[in-house]
Amino acid sequence: MTALSINGDRLWASLMSLAEIGGTPAGGVARLALTDLDRQGRERVIGWAKEAGCTIRVDQIGNIFARRPGRENDAPAVASGSHIDTQPTGGKFDGNYGVLAVLEVFRTLNDHDIQTRLPLEMAIWTNEEGSRFVPVMMGSGVYAGAFTLETALAAVDREGISVETALKAIGYAGESPAAVSAGAPLFAAYFEAHIEQGPVLEDADVVIGAVTGALGQRWYDITVTGQEAHAGPTPMALRRDALQAATRLMQETVAIALRHAPHGRGTVGTVDVFPSSRNVIPGRVKFTADLRNIDDETLSKMDAEIRAACAEVAAATRTKVDIEQVVYFPPTAFAPALVEGVRQGAKTRGYSCMDVVSGAGHDAVYVASQLPVGMIFVPCKDGISHNEVEDAKPEHLTAGCNVLLDAMLLAAA
Amino acid sequence: MTALSINGDRLWASLMSLAEIGGTPAGGVARLALTDLDRQGRERVIGWAKEAGCTIRVDQIGNIFARRPGRENDAPAVASGSHIDTQPTGGKFDGNYGVLAVLEVFRTLNDHDIQTRLPLEMAIWTNEEGSRFVPVMMGSGVYAGAFTLETALAAVDREGISVETALKAIGYAGESPAAVSAGAPLFAAYFEAHIEQGPVLEDADVVIGAVTGALGQRWYDITVTGQEAHAGPTPMALRRDALQAATRLMQETVAIALRHAPHGRGTVGTVDVFPSSRNVIPGRVKFTADLRNIDDETLSKMDAEIRAACAEVAAATRTKVDIEQVVYFPPTAFAPALVEGVRQGAKTRGYSCMDVVSGAGHDAVYVASQLPVGMIFVPCKDGISHNEVEDAKPEHLTAGCNVLLDAMLLAAA
Repeated sequence: MTALSINGDRLWASLMSLAEIGGTPAGGVARLALTDLDRQGRERVIGWAKEAGCTIRVDQIGNIFARRPGRENDAPAVASGSHIDTQPTGGKFDGNYGVLAVLEVFRTLNDHDIQTRLPLEMAIWTNEEGSRFVPVMMGSGVYAGAFTLETALAAVDREGISVETALKAIGYAGESPAAVSAGAPLFAAYFEAHIEQGPVLEDADVVIGAVTGALGQRWYDITVTGQEAHAGPTPMALRRDALQAATRLMQETVAIALRHAPHGRGTVGTVDVFPSSRNVIPGRVKFTADLRNIDDETLSKMDAEIRAACAEVAAATRTKVDIEQVVYFPPTAFAPALVEGVRQGAKTRGYSCMDVVSGAGHDAVYVASQLPVGMIFVPCKDGISHNEVEDAKPEHLTAGCNVLLDAMLLAAA
Repeated sequence: MTALSINGDRLWASLMSLAEIGGTPAGGVARLALTDLDRQGRERVIGWAKEAGCTIRVDQIGNIFARRPGRENDAPAVASGSHIDTQPTGGKFDGNYGVLAVLEVFRTLNDHDIQTRLPLEMAIWTNEEGSRFVPVMMGSGVYAGAFTLETALAAVDREGISVETALKAIGYAGESPAAVSAGAPLFAAYFEAHIEQGPVLEDADVVIGAVTGALGQRWYDITVTGQEAHAGPTPMALRRDALQAATRLMQETVAIALRHAPHGRGTVGTVDVFPSSRNVIPGRVKFTADLRNIDDETLSKMDAEIRAACAEVAAATRTKVDIEQVVYFPPTAFAPALVEGVRQGAKTRGYSCMDVVSGAGHDAVYVASQLPVGMIFVPCKDGISHNEVEDAKPEHLTAGCNVLLDAMLLAAA
């Protein structure tokens, strides 16, 4: 199998070509979902897929599937893909790499006249980023039944344009059923290659991340209510300072994550202080907490701990603390056989490899609720993405694509 | 002297009458500086002062002085007063009490045909609140030379209207020099009666606060810069979370105040988090710190401690911390003889009395840079002011006014 390798230069050239559409002066890409730039990107990739001999299917939420026939075309396909929409100040690799890596796999198989037993499909999921329309991961979410097609089509952007209207405007309101429950085909397996979007691989100097699963997430709104008062005339002992109470809980959010290492995450991302005046003791503080872990039992413990901390801090500071969970995603375990396939592919080719978890959401996470999924991470510079400076090394992208090639061939054999 | 007492009902009636001008449905007052409502308020008080036999002088910044002649009219006057402008959601007592308490002193002296040796003056200082125009404490600030008349006249509100224009519009651009340095008369002594605007007297169940001075203030902008990163993919150990570092400094702001009790104050009033997204580790946090104390040496120590804490936290958290002092008011000591006069007046009349400090700014604080000043605090409900629910008990307002009567008679004897 090691004789067969993808063409890294061709992969890189395709990435750079696609990055021209919506390219920014700072070297990033701004190609929001269902804009005319998204249409141009879709058409460029579809053109390449057709040149590679694929047939194209577009479903009702605009997901695109480019099919490379196998020997048993009535059997379920082995699919791989990602998305080509970007953040407003996005990069060249997030999503795009996962799509063009499959394209490069197809081209490599064509170069060597290889026919697989199962058909292969390249998936381009609609609106993964959620920058213009929420919910995020829209195309894969409809596929997996996380929400309905109707909900997705009715979502509107800030100008009031709906997904349904935008899909029609760019010509990607397809005919195929979008949801598995409505008859969308189940794949035999789904792979997704992606830049890590975190610093773990780079920090460990490792090329391939075999993604064992995705962290579960619990998001909270926490509101601390004390007593607004003048900063000057109010002695320290007579204060009920909502912000000081809140800082304890902000620190506890991190402490909880550290107590549940190595996969615990705890983040306070936003803080709103009322009345927000230099010389007024805050009467109310609202902040968000984001707790994550890889298994649901531990995540439940973390949930209990943040709730207990809220009660303790309220009592200790004579404040009122309200906590409301606003998001819950359970942890996702990827298919052990496919994860092992990624490990073995890396080992055979001599790439350094480590098990990692996905801390962020990906289309693969939704798809994993329906069928066996594996993900391949490659390092990105400084762990940065969703940023115009997002960068990745050609040799790492090549390595990830070779591992994808091996994994797809194994699954489709 | 205890035979002479002010008329508490008349004082209360005047307060309620003045509160009608700009009265809000919630029971507060909205009478911003140099509006037509301010003009109506000024005219009502001037009318009362004229009825009480006063002559009126208006200076170039619109400060009003109502003069009750004494036996030696070439000698400096004993003055007292405050302001009648309010916050947008202000109350009936802040400022207004200090002005109408002097008026009540004049009326009481008239009732008993008492002529003082020194003339007496009631002062109404322009724009103490600073809600419409900054700088705050504008009229007394010009008087004391904290900033120039020209600076004050050039200040504009949000609609671009200048103080100079607004003064002319309401007919209070007077002729008298406004600044002591330009020839405005120096008083022999200045008193100011005021609701406490804090909870100390109420908490101690004491009626009269003999104000020994005003806290010095140092205000800071503190900016913590870490590394923005995704909350999910970034393990705890690889983070440089600006908010977590900032919470330590927010807590230290309070700890510094507690170490320098009883007059230490430490407040963080505003927090701005960037980029302020639920699932993004904050890369930058900007917050304000407000440190106060009653003597300058201690305040300097507090300054050194917050700067040291910034350096320590930066080193411990791999962040960059910038601290900039944006305001410095030195502590103000009021005149010991006048403070003792307040104590003695309370004692003679059998009112409970305690020494307090003014944590907030007042016109008296600026005036104290020029001449001997004393302040009299009375309790306000729950320590709340700058709020439509601001409230005070008639018996406390009466007590404060009696102490003012005694103190002015003593100083003018």
